[in-house]
Amino acid sequence: MFSLTALIRRAAQINPHALATSDSGREILWDAFPQRIACLAAGLKDLGIRQDERAAILALNSDRYYEFYFAVAWAGGVFVPVNTRLAPAEVVHWLNDSGARVLCVDANFLPLVESIRDQLPALEHLVFLGESAPGNLVQWDQLAESHAIPDAGRKDADLAGLFYTGGTTGRSKGVMLSQQNLAVNALQAAPILQLQPGDRILHTAPMFHIADWCMCVGAAIVAGSNYFLPGFEPVQVMRSIEQQGIQKMLMVPTMINMVVHHPDLEKFDLSTLETVMYGASPMPESVIKRALDVLPQTRFCQAYGQTEAAPILTMLRPEYHTVDTESPFQGKLKSAGQAVPGVELAVLDEDDTPVAVGEVGEVCARGPNVMLGYRNLEDQTEATLRGGWLHTGDGGRMDEAGFLYIVDRVKDMIISGGENVFSAEVENVLYQHPAVAQCAVIGVPDEKWGERVHAIVVLKEGAEATEDALMAHCKELIAGYKCPRSVTFREDALPLSGAGKILKTELRRPYWKGQDRNVG
Amino acid sequence: MFSLTALIRRAAQINPHALATSDSGREILWDAFPQRIACLAAGLKDLGIRQDERAAILALNSDRYYEFYFAVAWAGGVFVPVNTRLAPAEVVHWLNDSGARVLCVDANFLPLVESIRDQLPALEHLVFLGESAPGNLVQWDQLAESHAIPDAGRKDADLAGLFYTGGTTGRSKGVMLSQQNLAVNALQAAPILQLQPGDRILHTAPMFHIADWCMCVGAAIVAGSNYFLPGFEPVQVMRSIEQQGIQKMLMVPTMINMVVHHPDLEKFDLSTLETVMYGASPMPESVIKRALDVLPQTRFCQAYGQTEAAPILTMLRPEYHTVDTESPFQGKLKSAGQAVPGVELAVLDEDDTPVAVGEVGEVCARGPNVMLGYRNLEDQTEATLRGGWLHTGDGGRMDEAGFLYIVDRVKDMIISGGENVFSAEVENVLYQHPAVAQCAVIGVPDEKWGERVHAIVVLKEGAEATEDALMAHCKELIAGYKCPRSVTFREDALPLSGAGKILKTELRRPYWKGQDRNVG
Repeated sequence: MFSLTALIRRAAQINPHALATSDSGREILWDAFPQRIACLAAGLKDLGIRQDERAAILALNSDRYYEFYFAVAWAGGVFVPVNTRLAPAEVVHWLNDSGARVLCVDANFLPLVESIRDQLPALEHLVFLGESAPGNLVQWDQLAESHAIPDAGRKDADLAGLFYTGGTTGRSKGVMLSQQNLAVNALQAAPILQLQPGDRILHTAPMFHIADWCMCVGAAIVAGSNYFLPGFEPVQVMRSIEQQGIQKMLMVPTMINMVVHHPDLEKFDLSTLETVMYGASPMPESVIKRALDVLPQTRFCQAYGQTEAAPILTMLRPEYHTVDTESPFQGKLKSAGQAVPGVELAVLDEDDTPVAVGEVGEVCARGPNVMLGYRNLEDQTEATLRGGWLHTGDGGRMDEAGFLYIVDRVKDMIISGGENVFSAEVENVLYQHPAVAQCAVIGVPDEKWGERVHAIVVLKEGAEATEDALMAHCKELIAGYKCPRSVTFREDALPLSGAGKILKTELRRPYWKGQDRNVG
Repeated sequence: MFSLTALIRRAAQINPHALATSDSGREILWDAFPQRIACLAAGLKDLGIRQDERAAILALNSDRYYEFYFAVAWAGGVFVPVNTRLAPAEVVHWLNDSGARVLCVDANFLPLVESIRDQLPALEHLVFLGESAPGNLVQWDQLAESHAIPDAGRKDADLAGLFYTGGTTGRSKGVMLSQQNLAVNALQAAPILQLQPGDRILHTAPMFHIADWCMCVGAAIVAGSNYFLPGFEPVQVMRSIEQQGIQKMLMVPTMINMVVHHPDLEKFDLSTLETVMYGASPMPESVIKRALDVLPQTRFCQAYGQTEAAPILTMLRPEYHTVDTESPFQGKLKSAGQAVPGVELAVLDEDDTPVAVGEVGEVCARGPNVMLGYRNLEDQTEATLRGGWLHTGDGGRMDEAGFLYIVDRVKDMIISGGENVFSAEVENVLYQHPAVAQCAVIGVPDEKWGERVHAIVVLKEGAEATEDALMAHCKELIAGYKCPRSVTFREDALPLSGAGKILKTELRRPYWKGQDRNVG
């Protein structure tokens, strides 16, 4: 039996006097945590969150976000974390597609939610994740005043969470993750992360993103203490590490880069930091060199995966993070690592036959962490899980020791500052502009963000549009981070393949000259 | 998806050039291991081991034993490891109850098997686990000459193994363990055992016993190298550690005791030995003191569990193995440790309500490693798994930090040299002797074996029987390790409880004066 709520009861049992969560002066010991969750669950249940009902959350990181996940599970419901960087129309789609009856929102997003509330027919209750709820909103802490209810007992293949992922057609898909999916993945990663009893863990990467999930569950597995920052800001992160003695955390390489090159780095004592997991993109050699130099006591692990795998499929172990050319472990930094325990990894061709070692194919996987499917999308579920294998949509190759190299996004995803941007989605928006005849959105190298969203546009004959006008058009319809940060106009038609597809590899080539786009 | 065969494919992928197994000069690399298993599976399939068919094994430890487990799973069958210390009548029961069609046997047990073969109607094929098969027996290596077959794809809740456990009524029960049960438990224990890629693991504890299972699967998870000794002999073990650089192994405290007090200890370099897991009984302080002294680089972990939990429920981490009274970790040596990740542990009263902290009740657990049930014993399955909790039959208490202390065997099990002896089973045999009026079998302290099987007997009026005669009587009917090693005759009737049950606690008391019988 796999159960998320069982994990917090065990944490309370084995480490009762340790802090479970600490945020802005609010502190709860593990001892008291399950009881608080049982009360919050009662409050949620009163609002309609029963068996299989969805409760969404739109907020920055906080202890309440952590409570939200376990309280919804305890009530028997399904949690739906919402990306904080979406455009209003996208939030509407996620909430309506999930059919959420309850939305928990903090002060940062209340204006947005109020502006779209009349477009959310299924939504019955707003819960305010803050101190003094405006108007007649229910306040999170008020929910905890309810009488504790017994755990609804969700387990194994029961649906636990809906995590939305961008889709190439511009539509987000709701990834249905089970109790087992969400409980087992941290267990698979724990030996590599070297999670230890009572670890102090900082959540600075956004908690709506499944990348941080492993740290949320990992903290419960080792009965560790959770600390929170509402977002990523290098000085705040360094201060938190020093003041709270943070030992484990997740960052994306962009964040690591900002910390290790920060002018105030030496003002802080970061010696407690034992393990940093990073994901979403590989570690540039210049960054790891600097990081190993200034954080000699810190181990780095890379994780590769996707929402559909809850999320980790492979990890690059700490020992491979070396620039010592004499080391037996050197030369793997561009790899996404090897399959984590319990995951079976294969690189398959178009007929789902394994390719030879070193050949490129689609990265596929099986394991206890692979999703149940996409909500209300049976065809896409069947296609993605055909033959019992999760088809990641990523192109990759594997070397003879099982190290995976992601060589291309089959779906042309761009990774900018750790966020996934699906080019087709941005293209769809550009095509809605009356002046655009043809366009291609690609990732181009960017010192700060790893990749930058770049659009190549052919205008209709006689039509006119400026770079600024196209960027403004996009900002109206999609999240800022998805919008092109630069636009090139082109006279000639875009190069096409024999099958009539735009040859993005060719378009990318001049921007990536002399650089690898080996993204993990 | 949990799958045992997926684990060996992953091992071959991530560590192809490492030894998978090494035994008596035979060596196989991980690279070649899945292919060999696929061929052996083909041979087993030709002998009738298809979907759900049982294949048993009666042999001392060897590389072939390790192959057997994975080959049976690959073929789609169910493996049935048989205790090597059973009396012939017990072997007959296990084999017939399981309905095994194939029995793999080594030279040590061939005479026994031939003596009972006509009592085994379901058995179709004997396979010889040795170099030159006598008569017309199939030889293990001949099976590998078959053409490889695809993996049958057993997974998750599919039955993988039948592990027999002693029963209080004298009848063994077949514990049905699924692919998930048998794959997940090593994952739960791995972080505590600190299993690392490529670990060299020695199998000296008997491989038929589920205690070593965690090491078998653990080796696959880290793509480590398996070494084998047919049995436990301290000098052989020390020589193996030195010659093969063994890093991880399972022993019972009796074995550890024999090693750390061996006169030739200092002749061997045991410095590679990183982790020793022990189970079945707690570590006497004198033994751990000596062990920490002579093996300062070795970490010790205790595991507590039972076959029904595949098998580990709790572990006492290495840091608690200390006799330093200043250490914050001291004072826990008599505990069986805390629930492993994913296991939820509770001490319940007769109404299945949790008792207060420190109170004694029945040790109960839930988790992904809890068995499917007992084969063909629906009532006992339902009783043991009632309310979704595995009822271990062990009495225990938990302290306020979740440390479990086993205070009594609810079923009066005796643990002698790491083997479980069910007193009721021995009593049944004694009652078959014509001179015995009343008897009680209890465990009494024994320096070498931890506990010794002791019988207290009241003879029928006018009847006569010597200690030797009763011991000989038992040896005819049950395994030697279960037989009483001492007998006390008593004139008075045995003390009874109000409900008419023999008061064993009272009988035990004089033997345990001043000693704890806190067995984990």
